[in-house]
Amino acid sequence: MILLLEKLDTNRTIETKEYNAAMKRLQRELAALQLKVKELEIPILIVFEGWSAAGKGTAISRLVYSLDPRDFNVYTMGKVAPSCSNRPFLCAYAANAPSKGRMAIYDKSWHRISLPEGQKAWKLKPAEKKGFYHDVNAFEKQLADDGTLIIKFFLHISKDEQKRRFDELEKNEATKWRIVERDKIQNKNYGKYTKYFDRMLTQTNECPWHIVAADDSKFAALMIYETLIAEINAAITSTTSPDKQIEMARPTETTQNSILKNVDLDKTISNEEYNKKLQFLQSKLSNLCYKMYAKRTSVVIVYEGWDAAGKGGNIKRLTQELDPRGYEVVPISAPTDEELRHQYLWRFWNKLPKDGHLTIFDRSWYGRVLVERVEGFATESEWRRAYQEINDMELHLANHGVVIFKFWVHIDKSEQLARFESRKVNEWKQHKLTDDDWRNRDKWGDYEAAVNEMINKTNTAHAPWVIIESNNKKYARIKTLEIVTEQLERMLS
Amino acid sequence: MILLLEKLDTNRTIETKEYNAAMKRLQRELAALQLKVKELEIPILIVFEGWSAAGKGTAISRLVYSLDPRDFNVYTMGKVAPSCSNRPFLCAYAANAPSKGRMAIYDKSWHRISLPEGQKAWKLKPAEKKGFYHDVNAFEKQLADDGTLIIKFFLHISKDEQKRRFDELEKNEATKWRIVERDKIQNKNYGKYTKYFDRMLTQTNECPWHIVAADDSKFAALMIYETLIAEINAAITSTTSPDKQIEMARPTETTQNSILKNVDLDKTISNEEYNKKLQFLQSKLSNLCYKMYAKRTSVVIVYEGWDAAGKGGNIKRLTQELDPRGYEVVPISAPTDEELRHQYLWRFWNKLPKDGHLTIFDRSWYGRVLVERVEGFATESEWRRAYQEINDMELHLANHGVVIFKFWVHIDKSEQLARFESRKVNEWKQHKLTDDDWRNRDKWGDYEAAVNEMINKTNTAHAPWVIIESNNKKYARIKTLEIVTEQLERMLS
Repeated sequence: MILLLEKLDTNRTIETKEYNAAMKRLQRELAALQLKVKELEIPILIVFEGWSAAGKGTAISRLVYSLDPRDFNVYTMGKVAPSCSNRPFLCAYAANAPSKGRMAIYDKSWHRISLPEGQKAWKLKPAEKKGFYHDVNAFEKQLADDGTLIIKFFLHISKDEQKRRFDELEKNEATKWRIVERDKIQNKNYGKYTKYFDRMLTQTNECPWHIVAADDSKFAALMIYETLIAEINAAITSTTSPDKQIEMARPTETTQNSILKNVDLDKTISNEEYNKKLQFLQSKLSNLCYKMYAKRTSVVIVYEGWDAAGKGGNIKRLTQELDPRGYEVVPISAPTDEELRHQYLWRFWNKLPKDGHLTIFDRSWYGRVLVERVEGFATESEWRRAYQEINDMELHLANHGVVIFKFWVHIDKSEQLARFESRKVNEWKQHKLTDDDWRNRDKWGDYEAAVNEMINKTNTAHAPWVIIESNNKKYARIKTLEIVTEQLERMLS
Repeated sequence: MILLLEKLDTNRTIETKEYNAAMKRLQRELAALQLKVKELEIPILIVFEGWSAAGKGTAISRLVYSLDPRDFNVYTMGKVAPSCSNRPFLCAYAANAPSKGRMAIYDKSWHRISLPEGQKAWKLKPAEKKGFYHDVNAFEKQLADDGTLIIKFFLHISKDEQKRRFDELEKNEATKWRIVERDKIQNKNYGKYTKYFDRMLTQTNECPWHIVAADDSKFAALMIYETLIAEINAAITSTTSPDKQIEMARPTETTQNSILKNVDLDKTISNEEYNKKLQFLQSKLSNLCYKMYAKRTSVVIVYEGWDAAGKGGNIKRLTQELDPRGYEVVPISAPTDEELRHQYLWRFWNKLPKDGHLTIFDRSWYGRVLVERVEGFATESEWRRAYQEINDMELHLANHGVVIFKFWVHIDKSEQLARFESRKVNEWKQHKLTDDDWRNRDKWGDYEAAVNEMINKTNTAHAPWVIIESNNKKYARIKTLEIVTEQLERMLS
């Protein structure tokens, strides 16, 4: 569908008396719905976009009038966000996504990065420009699929009305400062901007826009209330309808292509070669990290693997010679209660590296399709959806120029047993062995199926998996270091 | 005590062979201690300060070499922090304080804001300059009292050694960029900077500094390891010693000055007057908030009060006409598990308003001396300490120019009962009444004593308490609005 703003009537009005009566009723209705939303723990994301001086601020004021101020947050992201522009552009927005039962209201949003001035302010890279609409749609879809109700308003005013408002604001000493050069350019080039907005609306309409005729702010307010109430009612119905609550268990497909079975775990390395290579590679990586910083390239390394596969020791060797100001290791364990109130990727967005930095995830978002799948913490439709969601997120990072490594640190079942046994008797390592480890071990087959499917479905060109054979830990460490240094050398030269 | 850097010898050395042997032993020792620290959940904060090119980066690299990279974070706050300078300067640092069992390592820190270039970069206000050392000492004391082990190193090099290092860095194309004009000024004015550092060290020595002779980086590394190990051992001993674990219950002092008893709760207002004043004051406050924004003055409003006292409705009336982009309401309930891993004030630092904004806390840090005291979630020594800690934090905000309002919304016991009963039968309000409310009501006397003591001990000139008589809710709303508008008008004119 193509949205054509110029065909839409901006000038629809309502009588004051009629407005007052309707508004009173709608406000009461919305206040009651908000209680329901809280009870049902529905997160709501409301976006206000539109022409300069279209009345976004007024619309938000009118809207929150009937809400409990403890239950919503208003973000003015058009302005704030560029300061976060040393990360992929969705980071800041994703980090502010509403938690269960709360409302996030955006005065301007990520959509406007698609405008010429947005692309400039955010210094988008070519791949980011190219991937922009895909990334935005994927982001909104993820939140919606997770149960967030997203409602997007575009406030539409005519060229004359905009001009009239600018003139009025400029006449008044107290409001004069609100009109900047950028706004005037918009009015002068109203036709061109109509096309920009048309494209923005059309390309991001998978989660649909509501175009609001806003020449009359009262008419606009009523339409916003009515839309919101209808959308919330629909969300409540779908949340409480029985076919949503009971998810049918479907048989898990068996992945034919068993990747792990074909891994040669007998690979070893001599101590002498290990020591020589370790020192050489560590020092090389250290230099590459300075280069990364100078070029403002950032790197994400994901470690996944069996319990006792040697992830910790591997990470230790990888980071040992690095400038500690340039990297961070993020250990991922069970989500906190605040994290559980958000979509599962939420907790990772804030931890992504700033440009020029390296972040290592010791376990990661892949928990969704591993432990959460096997232990049943995620429903089948949730973890099945996650492959695409993860690919989309990683693509967003890659578009920003983030280099992504994903390692599956692999051992076989008997090697794991040997390591568990040795931990049992080693006073130094006893703390590393928990009941969970034994429980996970009992589900080796389930995990194996999950790992195979994960690698199959998320082994993308922009973020490929590498299996690290780790029955011999020293071999594993050297292989990891070699892959990282070689790839980085290629990317940075 | 006055620390005189010029009297200290910077040039102490160690033989390489001796160094290697000692370092190996110390690294092993530190790695073992780190496990212990994790087990005992001790948060550790390590600060590295010193002359430019004194080797802070190298020292941190050497230190983390033997640590598990999953257990520490390195912050380079000299550079990052000024971007947060639209809040009181401790916010950013307090928000990065280590949680239980983790280490936060600072490459440069809040101390250097005391240097002339720091004061300039941070645009400190006169009151902030004047209160600087008090605020820093109070901040460090709070963390230490809460169980954080703070270890502060100052790396000291001579003028000649610094010059030699600058020359060497400048000779090398790859490291040339690291020397900036500011560094050279330091070497040229070494004597003057010695005095600056002397003052900084002397004035912030309540949590003591370790001055490290750093002309020889190996000698420095050994000293840092030895100091750290000694400090951690001492912390472990004190954490596990029996007299720390068992806290003796002491009888609670009864506060003679019973403030709440003297409150006249019969104050009322006619409907007519209410409607007239409400509209007038709301619109006035809305204008004042624009003025606040223009002047970049920020405001904090704290609401505390009995269950069913009418806090929510009061907040609603206060915010109803405000531009929602300028204020935020932060509802405070039980801390999340992540929040419980930090000192109790941690969760508030991040939520303080940016300059020009208003933040309303619906319940607040005063929970420490109210619910946490009465329910026994805080030990007696913890809540007794909290009065001073809270006064210090509020003073820090006030020094930055934050205007602070604190309202105790007051009703009597029979009014509360009436409201509970009406909630029971009102379908709309049933969700507001929980078992907790009835339980709290049973402890009315304990809470009353806690409130009296709280008001007595935290009623400061920079952040005074106001009791809002709320048996008549409309009276309460008007009084709140009047106080806020009058005070703001005075502050902003």
